[in-house]
Amino acid sequence: MLVRRFLTPAHDAALDTLAFWMAQAGMTARRDTGGNLVGRYEGLTPNAPALLIGSHIDSVRNGGRYDGALGVTLGIDCVQALSDSGRRLPFAVEVIAFGDEEGSRFPASMACSRAVAGTVDPAVMEMTDGDGVSLAQAFAAFGLDPTRLEEAARRPGEVLAFLEAHIEQGPVLEAEGLALGVVTAIAAQKRLMVRFTGLAGHAGTTPMGLRKDPGPAAAEAILAVEQICGPHGDLGGKDGLVGTVGRITALPGAFNVIPGAVEFSIDVRAETSATRDAAVVAITAQVEAIAARRDLTVSVSLMQALAESPCDPDLTALLEAAVAETGQLARRLPSGAGHDAMVMADLCPTAMLFIRCEGGISHNPREAVTAADCAKAARAMLGFIQKLSDQFSLSSHPAPSGRPG
Amino acid sequence: MLVRRFLTPAHDAALDTLAFWMAQAGMTARRDTGGNLVGRYEGLTPNAPALLIGSHIDSVRNGGRYDGALGVTLGIDCVQALSDSGRRLPFAVEVIAFGDEEGSRFPASMACSRAVAGTVDPAVMEMTDGDGVSLAQAFAAFGLDPTRLEEAARRPGEVLAFLEAHIEQGPVLEAEGLALGVVTAIAAQKRLMVRFTGLAGHAGTTPMGLRKDPGPAAAEAILAVEQICGPHGDLGGKDGLVGTVGRITALPGAFNVIPGAVEFSIDVRAETSATRDAAVVAITAQVEAIAARRDLTVSVSLMQALAESPCDPDLTALLEAAVAETGQLARRLPSGAGHDAMVMADLCPTAMLFIRCEGGISHNPREAVTAADCAKAARAMLGFIQKLSDQFSLSSHPAPSGRPG
Repeated sequence: MLVRRFLTPAHDAALDTLAFWMAQAGMTARRDTGGNLVGRYEGLTPNAPALLIGSHIDSVRNGGRYDGALGVTLGIDCVQALSDSGRRLPFAVEVIAFGDEEGSRFPASMACSRAVAGTVDPAVMEMTDGDGVSLAQAFAAFGLDPTRLEEAARRPGEVLAFLEAHIEQGPVLEAEGLALGVVTAIAAQKRLMVRFTGLAGHAGTTPMGLRKDPGPAAAEAILAVEQICGPHGDLGGKDGLVGTVGRITALPGAFNVIPGAVEFSIDVRAETSATRDAAVVAITAQVEAIAARRDLTVSVSLMQALAESPCDPDLTALLEAAVAETGQLARRLPSGAGHDAMVMADLCPTAMLFIRCEGGISHNPREAVTAADCAKAARAMLGFIQKLSDQFSLSSHPAPSGRPG
Repeated sequence: MLVRRFLTPAHDAALDTLAFWMAQAGMTARRDTGGNLVGRYEGLTPNAPALLIGSHIDSVRNGGRYDGALGVTLGIDCVQALSDSGRRLPFAVEVIAFGDEEGSRFPASMACSRAVAGTVDPAVMEMTDGDGVSLAQAFAAFGLDPTRLEEAARRPGEVLAFLEAHIEQGPVLEAEGLALGVVTAIAAQKRLMVRFTGLAGHAGTTPMGLRKDPGPAAAEAILAVEQICGPHGDLGGKDGLVGTVGRITALPGAFNVIPGAVEFSIDVRAETSATRDAAVVAITAQVEAIAARRDLTVSVSLMQALAESPCDPDLTALLEAAVAETGQLARRLPSGAGHDAMVMADLCPTAMLFIRCEGGISHNPREAVTAADCAKAARAMLGFIQKLSDQFSLSSHPAPSGRPG
């Protein structure tokens, strides 16, 4: 079983292996104060700003081999290619292995990329894992100083851009026969809990006409979510809109009792907050209409709201051109899942490349990619680096537009 | 909190109180070998066959005051009235307090009335309660011999009929403004578990068009149950048909995961097996059509099937006439819940009287009846006893027709 949790011996061993590969590829590797490993390949001049390439090295419990780690090793492959041909660029290239993205040990995710982006809250050090060990204690046990977390922050001027390659964790590229995809944005998301309340009753003694059963109301609402977010809904499935009911509970939940309440979750995501919110408004209106028609009470609670995190348009255009040069259509798609790139967008412009994975399966030992797709990803990333280098040489404004540099 | 479980000190105390009241009403009371209390009011001749009146004395945890117990105390009230006026009948009247109907301590219900009806399986003695105490051990601790359970069986010739009065545990009588109802039959029942299986996936990364989500399929099926069993369905709600989805579970049940499977229960009841089965066939056909249309797999498992248990037509006609004489419409209705009367029907003809309860609420401390309704129930029961006595005197065949005497 693969499990590589933050600040564990498995994490330590992975960093040693990666540091060895980084050195082989001509980089100087260091562990930063935030639990990350950073390898640097200098540019034509010392202290040049760096293109950061990377992803996370931690895994969920019983996870797959590629989620996160592939983005790190592809970064090392790119530098290896530069190094093999003795090329230096007008910027440095750094490869970063973030220590924690999944939040599989401590109950907050992306603390490591937040530290690098300069947006981490030092209070995370008080969080404890399942064994009651605090993040501060885990840092100390790993040989890190918990009071120095924020020193991992990079100054905006020293980071040119961030490029993350990651398996898609979805089925779109496979369905379309494409190895690679160019991410336009990390999707905006809202999580709702809906609870219809009626009147519990005996399943045998309450005639159908005298029931206030929240079950069929929930059923209508679940179908409304599918209809509103689906390709034939009013929103026409635009901006990669998706809506999911993942949890459903009838209370009290007995064979012979008409439920008194039915609760279910709704997860809505789209490339833009506007489309996401239009869907949430439409769903909420339907839910309230269903409750009114069936004489039930209903509550809709917003559990979480995350705005979209768009990738940098200029960098994305470069990545598209590089993907097109590998001989495939440069498919643009949003990322429905969160990634370190959304955190890094607070520091610098970002671009993100998706790699097809078998069946869209992730967070599972069956996670799989092909060697050919990975080779194509490395070619696209090198093409992107070349284009960035060309643009950098031509321009007096090295930072791409659209994001604070 | 009211909880009176089988063979507990609470049960023992209740039997002592009832035995005292039985003695006051002119009965001789005895505990039988099955954990029941039986009071006998002799007829005009010794050893005459008996009309049995009764119900159960056990309760669910945090139950109400009337479920079961009311039927026992009304029986004692009737005998008290006979005794007060010094009347003896051509048959004896016995009042019985069954020890267990709810199955709230041991995982089988109605073992006590089964013992009286001669249909109990002695293997029930091996069943254990939540503390690992076997029924045999509980019998011994209560001063009963566990090997003598079957000796509680009554010979058919010594029992003329069984009359059970019970709160309705449903809202029909209250909705129609009636104190009493005459039960036609204990409804036939089937319990099904339905499981739609699709493909689990990431809620953010799987486009709507590429999903195999069992949730909306389950939603359609839940609405089909409501439609088929409802008053406007093909079966027109005939024979008191009801269909209930009491349990719904999405697996794995996470906010951000499209369920791989959704499971739910269906409980279908009707006055006749034919109507119940017609509903089950229609529901199953719809479930299979939904699975086929949505390219999912589905399983429909039959968990339980109980045939209807009709009350004796002649006794029911007598009870109807007695109810009509109290000045209200003699409303006939099936019982959607199971009762000791369905077990006793294997021994003798049965009749059953329902008493209105507030809001149809039962198995709950809020269970409530009015004193006026109880008084009316006692008048109807005395009327029934009088009519049975009249019929008995006129007939050379004392046992009512329609059932083995």
